[in-house]
Amino acid sequence: MAYDAIETPFGKTDKILGGCATYIGLAASQFHTDCALVSVIGEDFDKNHKQLLLDRGIDLTGVETIKGGKTFFWSGKYHNDLNTRTTLDTQLNVLTQFRPVVPQHFKDASFVLLGNLDPSLQLEVLNQMESKDRLVILDTMNFWIADYREKLDEVIARVDVLSINDEEARMLTEEHSLVAAAKKLHQMGPKYVIIKKGEHGALLFYHEHVFCAPALPLEEVFDPTGAGDSFIGGFAGYLAQRKSTAVADMKSAIIFGAALASFTVQEFGTTALENLSTPALNRRLNAFKSLTEFEIELQ
Amino acid sequence: MAYDAIETPFGKTDKILGGCATYIGLAASQFHTDCALVSVIGEDFDKNHKQLLLDRGIDLTGVETIKGGKTFFWSGKYHNDLNTRTTLDTQLNVLTQFRPVVPQHFKDASFVLLGNLDPSLQLEVLNQMESKDRLVILDTMNFWIADYREKLDEVIARVDVLSINDEEARMLTEEHSLVAAAKKLHQMGPKYVIIKKGEHGALLFYHEHVFCAPALPLEEVFDPTGAGDSFIGGFAGYLAQRKSTAVADMKSAIIFGAALASFTVQEFGTTALENLSTPALNRRLNAFKSLTEFEIELQ
Repeated sequence: MAYDAIETPFGKTDKILGGCATYIGLAASQFHTDCALVSVIGEDFDKNHKQLLLDRGIDLTGVETIKGGKTFFWSGKYHNDLNTRTTLDTQLNVLTQFRPVVPQHFKDASFVLLGNLDPSLQLEVLNQMESKDRLVILDTMNFWIADYREKLDEVIARVDVLSINDEEARMLTEEHSLVAAAKKLHQMGPKYVIIKKGEHGALLFYHEHVFCAPALPLEEVFDPTGAGDSFIGGFAGYLAQRKSTAVADMKSAIIFGAALASFTVQEFGTTALENLSTPALNRRLNAFKSLTEFEIELQ
Repeated sequence: MAYDAIETPFGKTDKILGGCATYIGLAASQFHTDCALVSVIGEDFDKNHKQLLLDRGIDLTGVETIKGGKTFFWSGKYHNDLNTRTTLDTQLNVLTQFRPVVPQHFKDASFVLLGNLDPSLQLEVLNQMESKDRLVILDTMNFWIADYREKLDEVIARVDVLSINDEEARMLTEEHSLVAAAKKLHQMGPKYVIIKKGEHGALLFYHEHVFCAPALPLEEVFDPTGAGDSFIGGFAGYLAQRKSTAVADMKSAIIFGAALASFTVQEFGTTALENLSTPALNRRLNAFKSLTEFEIELQ
Protein backbone atom coordinates (compact mmCIF):
# COMPACT_ATOMS: atom_id res chain seq x y z
CA MET A 1 0.00 0.00 0.00
CA ALA A 2 1.42 3.30 -1.00
CA TYR A 3 1.01 6.92 -1.82
CA ASP A 4 1.81 7.98 -5.37
CA ALA A 5 2.33 11.32 -7.04
CA ILE A 6 1.78 10.90 -10.75
CA GLU A 7 2.33 13.05 -13.78
CA THR A 8 0.93 12.09 -17.18
CA PRO A 9 0.58 14.11 -20.39
CA PHE A 10 -2.98 14.82 -19.22
CA GLY A 11 -2.38 16.09 -15.73
CA LYS A 12 -0.68 15.79 -12.40
CA THR A 13 -1.65 14.58 -8.93
CA ASP A 14 -0.45 15.28 -5.44
CA LYS A 15 -0.07 12.28 -3.14
CA ILE A 16 -2.89 9.87 -3.94
CA LEU A 17 -3.76 6.37 -2.76
CA GLY A 18 -1.76 3.71 -4.58
CA GLY A 19 0.24 0.52 -4.18
CA CYS A 20 -0.30 -2.91 -5.72
CA ALA A 21 -2.22 -4.22 -2.69
CA THR A 22 -4.67 -1.33 -2.89
CA TYR A 23 -5.42 -1.87 -6.58
CA ILE A 24 -5.60 -5.63 -6.08
CA GLY A 25 -8.01 -5.24 -3.17
CA LEU A 26 -10.24 -2.81 -5.03
CA ALA A 27 -10.31 -5.05 -8.09
CA ALA A 28 -10.86 -8.32 -6.18
CA SER A 29 -13.62 -6.79 -4.07
CA GLN A 30 -15.74 -6.38 -7.21
CA PHE A 31 -16.45 -10.08 -6.71
CA HIS A 32 -18.43 -11.97 -4.09
CA THR A 33 -15.57 -13.40 -2.10
CA ASP A 34 -13.68 -12.84 1.15
CA CYS A 35 -10.53 -10.90 0.55
CA ALA A 36 -7.70 -9.87 2.89
CA LEU A 37 -4.61 -7.76 2.27
CA VAL A 38 -1.21 -8.36 3.85
CA SER A 39 0.73 -5.12 3.75
CA VAL A 40 2.34 -2.34 5.76
CA ILE A 41 1.50 1.35 6.21
CA GLY A 42 2.75 4.28 8.24
CA GLU A 43 0.93 6.38 10.75
CA ASP A 44 0.39 8.96 8.00
CA PHE A 45 -1.99 6.59 6.18
CA ASP A 46 -5.30 8.44 5.88
CA LYS A 47 -8.08 6.83 7.91
CA ASN A 48 -10.49 7.64 5.09
CA HIS A 49 -8.41 5.47 2.78
CA LYS A 50 -8.52 2.65 5.30
CA GLN A 51 -12.28 3.09 5.60
CA LEU A 52 -12.66 3.05 1.82
CA LEU A 53 -11.16 -0.44 1.74
CA LEU A 54 -13.06 -1.65 4.83
CA ASP A 55 -16.33 -0.43 3.30
CA ARG A 56 -15.75 -2.78 0.42
CA GLY A 57 -15.43 -5.73 2.79
CA ILE A 58 -11.65 -6.01 2.49
CA ASP A 59 -10.09 -7.56 5.61
CA LEU A 60 -7.20 -5.38 6.80
CA THR A 61 -6.10 -7.34 9.89
CA GLY A 62 -2.97 -8.30 7.93
CA VAL A 63 -2.07 -4.66 7.33
CA GLU A 64 0.47 -3.55 9.92
CA THR A 65 0.73 0.11 10.94
CA ILE A 66 4.28 1.06 11.93
CA LYS A 67 4.28 3.60 14.76
CA GLY A 68 5.90 6.84 13.71
CA GLY A 69 6.50 5.38 10.27
CA LYS A 70 5.64 6.82 6.88
CA THR A 71 3.85 4.94 4.10
CA PHE A 72 5.83 3.93 1.02
CA PHE A 73 5.89 6.77 -1.50
CA TRP A 74 6.48 6.69 -5.25
CA SER A 75 6.48 9.52 -7.69
CA GLY A 76 6.75 9.14 -11.45
CA LYS A 77 6.19 10.82 -14.75
CA TYR A 78 4.79 9.08 -17.82
CA HIS A 79 6.09 10.06 -21.22
CA ASN A 80 3.95 10.99 -24.18
CA ASP A 81 3.31 7.45 -25.43
CA LEU A 82 2.43 6.35 -21.85
CA ASN A 83 4.44 3.16 -22.38
CA THR A 84 7.50 4.46 -20.60
CA ARG A 85 7.91 6.35 -17.37
CA THR A 86 10.60 7.96 -15.28
CA THR A 87 10.68 7.43 -11.52
CA LEU A 88 11.13 10.82 -9.88
CA ASP A 89 11.22 9.69 -6.28
CA THR A 90 11.00 6.45 -4.28
CA GLN A 91 10.77 6.58 -0.48
CA LEU A 92 10.70 3.03 0.88
CA ASN A 93 9.80 4.27 4.41
CA VAL A 94 7.95 1.52 6.36
CA LEU A 95 8.57 -0.99 3.61
CA THR A 96 12.10 -1.51 4.98
CA GLN A 97 10.55 -2.86 8.21
CA PHE A 98 7.88 -4.99 6.56
CA ARG A 99 7.56 -8.52 7.98
CA PRO A 100 4.36 -9.84 6.44
CA VAL A 101 2.01 -11.70 8.80
CA VAL A 102 -0.88 -13.61 7.28
CA PRO A 103 -3.95 -13.42 9.58
CA GLN A 104 -4.74 -16.83 11.11
CA HIS A 105 -8.21 -16.88 9.56
CA PHE A 106 -6.75 -16.44 6.05
CA LYS A 107 -3.98 -19.06 6.27
CA ASP A 108 -6.32 -21.60 4.68
CA ALA A 109 -7.17 -19.35 1.74
CA SER A 110 -7.68 -21.19 -1.53
CA PHE A 111 -6.37 -18.32 -3.63
CA VAL A 112 -3.11 -16.57 -2.80
CA LEU A 113 -1.97 -13.63 -4.89
CA LEU A 114 1.60 -12.48 -4.38
CA GLY A 115 1.60 -8.89 -5.56
CA ASN A 116 4.56 -7.22 -7.17
CA LEU A 117 7.13 -6.89 -4.33
CA ASP A 118 10.48 -8.18 -3.06
CA PRO A 119 10.53 -11.97 -3.73
CA SER A 120 11.81 -12.60 -0.16
CA LEU A 121 8.62 -11.07 1.22
CA GLN A 122 6.54 -13.05 -1.25
CA LEU A 123 8.24 -16.21 0.06
CA GLU A 124 7.53 -15.21 3.66
CA VAL A 125 3.82 -14.99 2.84
CA LEU A 126 3.85 -18.30 1.00
CA ASN A 127 5.58 -20.04 3.92
CA GLN A 128 2.79 -19.00 6.26
CA MET A 129 0.00 -20.49 4.16
CA GLU A 130 -1.53 -23.69 5.49
CA SER A 131 -4.11 -24.50 2.84
CA LYS A 132 -3.39 -27.63 0.81
CA ASP A 133 -5.46 -27.07 -2.30
CA ARG A 134 -4.59 -23.55 -3.15
CA LEU A 135 -3.85 -21.64 -6.32
CA VAL A 136 -0.84 -19.37 -5.94
CA ILE A 137 -0.58 -16.47 -8.38
CA LEU A 138 2.58 -14.41 -8.74
CA ASP A 139 2.96 -10.95 -10.18
CA THR A 140 6.43 -9.46 -10.57
CA MET A 141 8.34 -6.87 -12.60
CA ASN A 142 11.67 -6.03 -14.24
CA PHE A 143 13.24 -4.59 -11.06
CA TRP A 144 13.07 -7.97 -9.24
CA ILE A 145 14.19 -9.86 -12.35
CA ALA A 146 17.31 -7.75 -12.70
CA ASP A 147 18.49 -7.62 -9.10
CA TYR A 148 16.75 -10.39 -7.11
CA ARG A 149 16.89 -13.19 -9.63
CA GLU A 150 17.82 -16.07 -7.32
CA LYS A 151 15.05 -15.39 -4.82
CA LEU A 152 12.60 -14.72 -7.62
CA ASP A 153 13.37 -18.08 -9.22
CA GLU A 154 12.64 -19.67 -5.84
CA VAL A 155 9.19 -18.06 -5.74
CA ILE A 156 8.46 -18.85 -9.39
CA ALA A 157 9.20 -22.53 -8.71
CA ARG A 158 6.45 -22.58 -6.08
CA VAL A 159 3.57 -20.85 -7.84
CA ASP A 160 0.82 -22.09 -10.13
CA VAL A 161 0.20 -18.94 -12.15
CA LEU A 162 2.86 -16.46 -13.23
CA SER A 163 1.73 -13.05 -14.48
CA ILE A 164 4.39 -11.03 -16.25
CA ASN A 165 4.62 -8.59 -19.13
CA ASP A 166 6.12 -9.36 -22.53
CA GLU A 167 9.42 -7.54 -22.05
CA GLU A 168 9.87 -9.16 -18.63
CA ALA A 169 9.15 -12.61 -20.07
CA ARG A 170 11.87 -12.00 -22.64
CA MET A 171 14.22 -10.70 -19.97
CA LEU A 172 13.65 -13.75 -17.73
CA THR A 173 14.08 -16.32 -20.48
CA GLU A 174 16.32 -14.63 -23.04
CA GLU A 175 13.85 -15.76 -25.70
CA HIS A 176 12.33 -13.27 -28.13
CA SER A 177 9.38 -15.42 -29.17
CA LEU A 178 6.72 -15.34 -26.45
CA VAL A 179 5.81 -18.94 -27.24
CA ALA A 180 9.39 -20.00 -26.61
CA ALA A 181 9.55 -17.78 -23.51
CA ALA A 182 6.35 -19.34 -22.10
CA LYS A 183 7.83 -22.82 -22.58
CA LYS A 184 10.86 -21.87 -20.50
CA LEU A 185 8.67 -20.23 -17.86
CA HIS A 186 6.60 -23.43 -17.59
CA GLN A 187 9.82 -25.33 -17.01
CA MET A 188 10.61 -23.01 -14.10
CA GLY A 189 7.45 -24.12 -12.29
CA PRO A 190 4.15 -22.43 -13.12
CA LYS A 191 1.57 -24.51 -14.98
CA TYR A 192 -0.13 -21.32 -16.12
CA VAL A 193 1.77 -18.42 -17.62
CA ILE A 194 0.04 -15.11 -18.35
CA ILE A 195 2.00 -12.75 -20.56
CA LYS A 196 0.59 -9.22 -20.47
CA LYS A 197 1.04 -7.11 -23.60
CA GLY A 198 -0.50 -3.81 -22.50
CA GLU A 199 -2.68 -2.34 -25.25
CA HIS A 200 -2.32 -5.63 -27.16
CA GLY A 201 -4.04 -7.74 -24.51
CA ALA A 202 -2.69 -10.83 -22.78
CA LEU A 203 -1.82 -14.44 -23.55
CA LEU A 204 -2.50 -17.40 -21.26
CA PHE A 205 -0.26 -20.39 -21.88
CA TYR A 206 -1.46 -23.70 -20.41
CA HIS A 207 -0.94 -27.42 -21.19
CA GLU A 208 0.65 -26.59 -24.57
CA HIS A 209 -2.30 -24.38 -25.52
CA VAL A 210 -2.71 -20.63 -25.76
CA PHE A 211 -5.59 -18.30 -25.07
CA CYS A 212 -5.44 -14.80 -26.50
CA ALA A 213 -7.35 -12.09 -24.61
CA PRO A 214 -7.80 -8.70 -26.25
CA ALA A 215 -7.38 -5.36 -24.58
CA LEU A 216 -10.21 -2.92 -25.16
CA PRO A 217 -9.00 -0.35 -27.70
CA LEU A 218 -9.25 2.93 -25.82
CA GLU A 219 -9.15 6.37 -27.36
CA GLU A 220 -7.38 7.77 -24.35
CA VAL A 221 -5.25 6.16 -21.67
CA PHE A 222 -5.18 8.70 -18.90
CA ASP A 223 -2.94 7.06 -16.27
CA PRO A 224 -1.54 3.52 -16.64
CA THR A 225 -0.60 3.24 -12.92
CA GLY A 226 -2.13 0.13 -11.36
CA ALA A 227 -3.29 -1.45 -14.62
CA GLY A 228 -1.33 -4.68 -14.04
CA ASP A 229 -2.44 -4.83 -10.39
CA SER A 230 -6.08 -4.29 -11.31
CA PHE A 231 -5.77 -6.98 -13.95
CA ILE A 232 -4.35 -9.65 -11.65
CA GLY A 233 -6.57 -8.59 -8.72
CA GLY A 234 -9.62 -9.03 -10.93
CA PHE A 235 -8.28 -12.36 -12.19
CA ALA A 236 -7.84 -13.71 -8.65
CA GLY A 237 -11.12 -12.23 -7.40
CA TYR A 238 -13.13 -13.82 -10.17
CA LEU A 239 -11.57 -17.25 -9.65
CA ALA A 240 -12.18 -16.98 -5.89
CA GLN A 241 -15.81 -16.11 -6.51
CA ARG A 242 -16.15 -19.11 -8.85
CA LYS A 243 -14.12 -21.28 -6.42
CA SER A 244 -12.54 -22.70 -9.55
CA THR A 245 -9.15 -23.27 -11.11
CA ALA A 246 -10.53 -24.68 -14.36
CA VAL A 247 -8.94 -23.31 -17.52
CA ALA A 248 -12.30 -22.11 -18.86
CA ASP A 249 -12.71 -20.01 -15.70
CA MET A 250 -9.15 -18.71 -15.97
CA LYS A 251 -9.99 -17.43 -19.45
CA SER A 252 -13.06 -15.62 -18.12
CA ALA A 253 -10.96 -14.36 -15.21
CA ILE A 254 -8.49 -12.82 -17.66
CA ILE A 255 -11.32 -11.00 -19.43
CA PHE A 256 -12.62 -9.70 -16.08
CA GLY A 257 -9.08 -8.60 -15.20
CA ALA A 258 -8.64 -6.86 -18.54
CA ALA A 259 -12.01 -5.13 -18.12
CA LEU A 260 -11.05 -3.84 -14.66
CA ALA A 261 -7.67 -2.66 -15.93
CA SER A 262 -9.42 -0.81 -18.77
CA PHE A 263 -11.34 1.20 -16.16
CA THR A 264 -8.27 1.88 -14.03
CA VAL A 265 -6.33 3.54 -16.84
CA GLN A 266 -9.16 5.91 -17.70
CA GLU A 267 -8.74 8.03 -14.57
CA PHE A 268 -5.98 8.92 -12.13
CA GLY A 269 -5.02 6.31 -9.52
CA THR A 270 -7.80 4.27 -7.98
CA THR A 271 -10.60 6.72 -8.90
CA ALA A 272 -12.21 4.57 -11.59
CA LEU A 273 -12.09 1.37 -9.50
CA GLU A 274 -13.56 3.17 -6.49
CA ASN A 275 -16.53 4.42 -8.50
CA LEU A 276 -17.10 1.37 -10.65
CA SER A 277 -20.69 0.08 -10.72
CA THR A 278 -21.75 -3.45 -11.62
CA PRO A 279 -23.82 -2.30 -14.63
CA ALA A 280 -20.81 -0.40 -16.00
CA LEU A 281 -18.61 -3.47 -15.52
CA ASN A 282 -21.19 -5.64 -17.27
CA ARG A 283 -21.43 -3.24 -20.20
CA ARG A 284 -17.68 -3.42 -20.61
CA LEU A 285 -17.68 -7.22 -20.41
CA ASN A 286 -20.21 -7.25 -23.24
CA ALA A 287 -17.92 -4.93 -25.19
CA PHE A 288 -15.09 -7.47 -24.76
CA LYS A 289 -17.39 -10.18 -26.04
CA SER A 290 -18.46 -8.31 -29.17
CA LEU A 291 -14.90 -7.14 -29.73
CA THR A 292 -13.69 -10.68 -30.38
CA GLU A 293 -16.63 -12.61 -31.79
CA PHE A 294 -16.39 -14.05 -35.28
CA GLU A 295 -17.76 -16.98 -37.24
CA ILE A 296 -15.68 -19.28 -39.39
CA GLU A 297 -17.02 -21.61 -42.07
CA LEU A 298 -14.16 -23.91 -42.95
CA GLN A 299 -13.10 -24.10 -46.61
CA MET B 1 5.57 -9.21 -59.16
CA ALA B 2 9.16 -9.42 -58.15
CA TYR B 3 12.23 -11.40 -57.35
CA ASP B 4 13.55 -11.16 -53.81
CA ALA B 5 16.78 -12.19 -52.13
CA ILE B 6 16.17 -12.50 -48.41
CA GLU B 7 18.35 -12.97 -45.39
CA THR B 8 16.88 -13.79 -41.98
CA PRO B 9 18.54 -15.01 -38.78
CA PHE B 10 17.57 -18.50 -39.94
CA GLY B 11 18.99 -18.54 -43.45
CA LYS B 12 19.43 -16.88 -46.78
CA THR B 13 17.92 -17.21 -50.24
CA ASP B 14 19.07 -16.46 -53.74
CA LYS B 15 16.54 -14.77 -56.04
CA ILE B 16 13.13 -16.21 -55.22
CA LEU B 17 9.61 -15.44 -56.38
CA GLY B 18 8.12 -12.45 -54.56
CA GLY B 19 6.16 -9.22 -54.94
CA CYS B 20 2.86 -8.18 -53.42
CA ALA B 21 0.82 -9.31 -56.43
CA THR B 22 2.31 -12.80 -56.24
CA TYR B 23 1.51 -13.22 -52.53
CA ILE B 24 -1.94 -11.70 -53.02
CA GLY B 25 -2.68 -14.04 -55.94
CA LEU B 26 -1.49 -17.13 -54.07
CA ALA B 27 -3.53 -16.17 -51.00
CA ALA B 28 -6.69 -15.20 -52.90
CA SER B 29 -6.57 -18.35 -55.01
CA GLN B 30 -7.14 -20.44 -51.86
CA PHE B 31 -10.76 -19.41 -52.35
CA HIS B 32 -13.34 -20.34 -54.98
CA THR B 33 -13.36 -17.14 -56.98
CA ASP B 34 -12.02 -15.71 -60.23
CA CYS B 35 -8.87 -13.75 -59.66
CA ALA B 36 -6.70 -11.69 -61.98
CA LEU B 37 -3.43 -9.87 -61.38
CA VAL B 38 -2.45 -6.57 -62.97
CA SER B 39 1.33 -6.28 -62.89
CA VAL B 40 4.51 -6.10 -64.91
CA ILE B 41 7.44 -8.49 -65.37
CA GLY B 42 10.63 -8.67 -67.41
CA GLU B 43 11.68 -11.28 -69.94
CA ASP B 44 13.74 -12.91 -67.18
CA PHE B 45 10.57 -13.95 -65.33
CA ASP B 46 10.75 -17.75 -65.04
CA LYS B 47 8.04 -19.52 -67.04
CA ASN B 48 7.69 -22.04 -64.23
CA HIS B 49 6.69 -19.20 -61.90
CA LYS B 50 4.12 -18.03 -64.43
CA GLN B 51 2.83 -21.60 -64.73
CA LEU B 52 2.63 -21.91 -60.94
CA LEU B 53 0.18 -18.99 -60.85
CA LEU B 54 -1.76 -20.17 -63.94
CA ASP B 55 -2.15 -23.65 -62.41
CA ARG B 56 -3.97 -22.05 -59.50
CA GLY B 57 -6.47 -20.46 -61.88
CA ILE B 58 -5.02 -16.95 -61.59
CA ASP B 59 -5.72 -14.87 -64.72
CA LEU B 60 -2.47 -13.26 -65.92
CA THR B 61 -3.73 -11.41 -69.01
CA GLY B 62 -3.18 -8.17 -67.05
CA VAL B 63 0.48 -8.98 -66.45
CA GLU B 64 2.59 -7.24 -69.06
CA THR B 65 5.98 -8.63 -70.09
CA ILE B 66 8.41 -5.89 -71.10
CA LYS B 67 10.67 -7.04 -73.96
CA GLY B 68 14.30 -7.03 -72.90
CA GLY B 69 13.29 -5.85 -69.45
CA LYS B 70 14.21 -7.25 -66.07
CA THR B 71 11.72 -7.99 -63.28
CA PHE B 72 11.71 -5.77 -60.19
CA PHE B 73 14.29 -6.99 -57.68
CA TRP B 74 14.50 -6.41 -53.95
CA SER B 75 17.04 -7.68 -51.48
CA GLY B 76 16.82 -7.25 -47.73
CA LYS B 77 18.09 -8.51 -44.43
CA TYR B 78 15.91 -8.99 -41.37
CA HIS B 79 17.39 -8.28 -37.97
CA ASN B 80 17.25 -10.61 -35.00
CA ASP B 81 13.83 -9.56 -33.74
CA LEU B 82 12.43 -9.86 -37.31
CA ASN B 83 10.49 -6.64 -36.78
CA THR B 84 13.01 -4.48 -38.58
CA ARG B 85 14.87 -4.98 -41.82
CA THR B 86 17.51 -3.31 -43.92
CA THR B 87 17.06 -2.99 -47.67
CA LEU B 88 20.29 -4.11 -49.31
CA ASP B 89 19.30 -3.52 -52.93
CA THR B 90 16.31 -2.28 -54.92
CA GLN B 91 16.31 -2.55 -58.71
CA LEU B 92 13.09 -1.03 -60.08
CA ASN B 93 13.78 -2.38 -63.59
CA VAL B 94 10.49 -2.80 -65.53
CA LEU B 95 8.51 -1.10 -62.77
CA THR B 96 9.64 2.27 -64.16
CA GLN B 97 7.74 1.48 -67.39
CA PHE B 98 4.63 0.05 -65.73
CA ARG B 99 1.32 1.34 -67.14
CA PRO B 100 -1.30 -0.93 -65.58
CA VAL B 101 -4.03 -2.20 -67.93
CA VAL B 102 -7.02 -3.92 -66.40
CA PRO B 103 -8.21 -6.76 -68.70
CA GLN B 104 -11.63 -5.96 -70.22
CA HIS B 105 -13.24 -9.05 -68.65
CA PHE B 106 -12.18 -7.91 -65.16
CA LYS B 107 -13.29 -4.28 -65.38
CA ASP B 108 -16.59 -5.23 -63.80
CA ALA B 109 -14.93 -6.99 -60.82
CA SER B 110 -16.81 -6.62 -57.54
CA PHE B 111 -13.63 -6.70 -55.46
CA VAL B 112 -10.62 -4.58 -56.30
CA LEU B 113 -7.46 -4.88 -54.21
CA LEU B 114 -4.85 -2.18 -54.74
CA GLY B 115 -1.62 -3.80 -53.58
CA ASN B 116 1.19 -1.88 -51.97
CA LEU B 117 2.62 0.25 -54.83
CA ASP B 118 2.94 3.83 -56.10
CA PRO B 119 -0.41 5.56 -55.43
CA SER B 120 -0.43 6.98 -58.99
CA LEU B 121 -0.47 3.44 -60.37
CA GLN B 122 -3.18 2.47 -57.87
CA LEU B 123 -5.25 5.39 -59.19
CA GLU B 124 -4.69 4.31 -62.81
CA VAL B 125 -6.15 0.90 -61.96
CA LEU B 126 -9.09 2.41 -60.12
CA ASN B 127 -9.88 4.74 -63.03
CA GLN B 128 -10.20 1.75 -65.37
CA MET B 129 -12.77 -0.05 -63.26
CA GLU B 130 -16.32 0.00 -64.60
CA SER B 131 -18.19 -1.95 -61.90
CA LYS B 132 -20.67 0.08 -59.89
CA ASP B 133 -21.06 -2.00 -56.77
CA ARG B 134 -17.52 -2.78 -55.92
CA LEU B 135 -15.48 -2.97 -52.76
CA VAL B 136 -12.11 -1.29 -53.15
CA ILE B 137 -9.38 -2.35 -50.72
CA LEU B 138 -6.14 -0.44 -50.37
CA ASP B 139 -2.85 -1.64 -48.95
CA THR B 140 0.03 0.79 -48.57
CA MET B 141 3.20 1.34 -46.56
CA ASN B 142 5.46 3.95 -44.93
CA PHE B 143 7.42 4.70 -48.11
CA TRP B 144 4.33 6.06 -49.92
CA ILE B 145 3.15 7.91 -46.82
CA ALA B 146 6.42 9.76 -46.50
CA ASP B 147 7.05 10.76 -50.10
CA TYR B 148 3.79 10.43 -52.09
CA ARG B 149 1.35 11.81 -49.55
CA GLU B 150 -0.83 13.92 -51.86
CA LYS B 151 -1.45 11.14 -54.36
CA LEU B 152 -1.94 8.64 -51.53
CA ASP B 153 -4.61 10.85 -49.93
CA GLU B 154 -6.37 10.90 -53.28
CA VAL B 155 -6.46 7.09 -53.39
CA ILE B 156 -7.49 6.80 -49.73
CA ALA B 157 -10.45 9.10 -50.40
CA ARG B 158 -11.73 6.67 -53.03
CA VAL B 159 -11.46 3.32 -51.25
CA ASP B 160 -13.80 1.41 -48.96
CA VAL B 161 -11.25 -0.53 -46.94
CA LEU B 162 -7.83 0.73 -45.89
CA SER B 163 -5.28 -1.80 -44.63
CA ILE B 164 -2.28 -0.31 -42.86
CA ASN B 165 0.02 -1.20 -39.99
CA ASP B 166 0.01 0.50 -36.59
CA GLU B 167 3.12 2.63 -37.12
CA GLU B 168 1.86 3.75 -40.52
CA ALA B 169 -1.56 4.66 -39.06
CA ARG B 170 0.23 6.83 -36.49
CA MET B 171 2.43 8.34 -39.20
CA LEU B 172 -0.55 9.18 -41.42
CA THR B 173 -2.66 10.73 -38.67
CA GLU B 174 -0.15 11.99 -36.11
CA GLU B 175 -2.26 10.27 -33.45
CA HIS B 176 -0.69 7.82 -31.00
CA SER B 177 -3.94 6.13 -29.96
CA LEU B 178 -5.05 3.71 -32.66
CA VAL B 179 -8.69 4.51 -31.86
CA ALA B 180 -8.04 8.19 -32.51
CA ALA B 181 -5.98 7.32 -35.61
CA ALA B 182 -8.80 5.18 -37.01
CA LYS B 183 -11.26 8.04 -36.54
CA LYS B 184 -9.06 10.34 -38.62
CA LEU B 185 -8.59 7.63 -41.26
CA HIS B 186 -12.37 7.20 -41.52
CA GLN B 187 -12.63 10.95 -42.10
CA MET B 188 -10.20 10.58 -45.01
CA GLY B 189 -12.64 8.28 -46.82
CA PRO B 190 -12.60 4.55 -45.98
CA LYS B 191 -15.62 3.17 -44.10
CA TYR B 192 -13.50 0.23 -42.97
CA VAL B 193 -10.05 0.64 -41.48
CA ILE B 194 -7.87 -2.39 -40.75
CA ILE B 195 -4.87 -1.68 -38.55
CA LYS B 196 -2.34 -4.52 -38.63
CA LYS B 197 -0.23 -5.06 -35.52
CA GLY B 198 2.02 -7.93 -36.63
CA GLU B 199 2.35 -10.51 -33.87
CA HIS B 200 -0.43 -8.72 -31.95
CA GLY B 201 -3.09 -9.32 -34.59
CA ALA B 202 -5.25 -6.73 -36.31
CA LEU B 203 -8.08 -4.33 -35.54
CA LEU B 204 -11.04 -3.63 -37.82
CA PHE B 205 -12.72 -0.28 -37.20
CA TYR B 206 -16.23 0.12 -38.68
CA HIS B 207 -19.33 2.24 -37.90
CA GLU B 208 -17.87 3.29 -34.53
CA HIS B 209 -17.20 -0.33 -33.57
CA VAL B 210 -14.01 -2.36 -33.33
CA PHE B 211 -13.22 -5.99 -34.01
CA CYS B 212 -10.02 -7.40 -32.58
CA ALA B 213 -8.46 -10.32 -34.46
CA PRO B 214 -5.62 -12.24 -32.82
CA ALA B 215 -2.45 -13.37 -34.51
CA LEU B 216 -1.54 -16.98 -33.94
CA PRO B 217 1.31 -17.05 -31.40
CA LEU B 218 4.15 -18.75 -33.29
CA GLU B 219 7.28 -20.21 -31.76
CA GLU B 220 9.30 -19.24 -34.78
CA VAL B 221 8.81 -16.64 -37.46
CA PHE B 222 11.09 -17.73 -40.25
CA ASP B 223 10.64 -14.99 -42.86
CA PRO B 224 8.11 -12.13 -42.50
CA THR B 225 8.25 -11.19 -46.21
CA GLY B 226 4.79 -11.15 -47.76
CA ALA B 227 2.85 -11.49 -44.49
CA GLY B 228 0.85 -8.29 -45.08
CA ASP B 229 0.20 -9.21 -48.73
CA SER B 230 -0.95 -12.72 -47.79
CA PHE B 231 -3.20 -11.22 -45.15
CA ILE B 232 -4.95 -8.77 -47.45
CA GLY B 233 -5.01 -11.25 -50.37
CA GLY B 234 -6.77 -13.77 -48.14
CA PHE B 235 -9.13 -11.07 -46.88
CA ALA B 236 -10.15 -10.08 -50.42
CA GLY B 237 -10.29 -13.68 -51.67
CA TYR B 238 -12.61 -14.76 -48.89
CA LEU B 239 -14.99 -11.83 -49.42
CA ALA B 240 -15.02 -12.49 -53.17
CA GLN B 241 -15.88 -16.14 -52.54
CA ARG B 242 -18.70 -15.08 -50.21
CA LYS B 243 -19.75 -12.31 -52.65
CA SER B 244 -20.31 -10.26 -49.51
CA THR B 245 -19.30 -6.98 -47.97
CA ALA B 246 -21.16 -7.58 -44.69
CA VAL B 247 -19.22 -6.75 -41.55
CA ALA B 248 -19.65 -10.30 -40.21
CA ASP B 249 -17.96 -11.61 -43.35
CA MET B 250 -15.21 -8.99 -43.10
CA LYS B 251 -14.42 -10.33 -39.61
CA SER B 252 -14.17 -13.88 -40.94
CA ALA B 253 -12.12 -12.56 -43.86
CA ILE B 254 -9.63 -11.04 -41.43
CA ILE B 255 -9.27 -14.37 -39.65
CA PHE B 256 -8.68 -16.12 -43.00
CA GLY B 257 -6.13 -13.46 -43.89
CA ALA B 258 -4.36 -13.84 -40.55
CA ALA B 259 -4.32 -17.62 -40.96
CA LEU B 260 -2.75 -17.36 -44.42
CA ALA B 261 -0.17 -14.86 -43.16
CA SER B 262 0.70 -17.24 -40.33
CA PHE B 263 1.64 -19.87 -42.92
CA THR B 264 3.61 -17.44 -45.07
CA VAL B 265 5.97 -16.44 -42.28
CA GLN B 266 6.83 -20.03 -41.41
CA GLU B 267 8.89 -20.59 -44.56
CA PHE B 268 10.94 -18.54 -47.01
CA GLY B 269 9.02 -16.51 -49.59
CA THR B 270 5.94 -18.08 -51.13
CA THR B 271 6.88 -21.68 -50.20
CA ALA B 272 4.24 -22.15 -47.52
CA LEU B 273 1.42 -20.62 -49.59
CA GLU B 274 2.38 -22.74 -52.60
CA ASN B 275 2.17 -25.96 -50.60
CA LEU B 276 -0.80 -25.10 -48.42
CA SER B 277 -3.56 -27.73 -48.34
CA THR B 278 -7.19 -27.09 -47.45
CA PRO B 279 -7.07 -29.46 -44.43
CA ALA B 280 -4.02 -27.61 -43.07
CA LEU B 281 -5.79 -24.27 -43.54
CA ASN B 282 -8.90 -25.61 -41.78
CA ARG B 283 -6.84 -26.90 -38.86
CA ARG B 284 -5.32 -23.46 -38.46
CA LEU B 285 -8.72 -21.75 -38.65
CA ASN B 286 -9.86 -24.01 -35.82
CA ALA B 287 -6.77 -22.97 -33.87
CA PHE B 288 -7.77 -19.32 -34.30
CA LYS B 289 -11.24 -20.17 -33.04
CA SER B 290 -10.04 -21.94 -29.89
CA LEU B 291 -7.39 -19.28 -29.33
CA THR B 292 -10.01 -16.62 -28.68
CA GLU B 293 -13.06 -18.39 -27.27
CA PHE B 294 -14.22 -17.52 -23.80
CA GLU B 295 -17.45 -17.43 -21.82
CA ILE B 296 -18.59 -14.55 -19.66
CA GLU B 297 -21.25 -14.68 -16.99
CA LEU B 298 -22.05 -11.10 -16.09
CA GLN B 299 -21.72 -10.07 -12.46
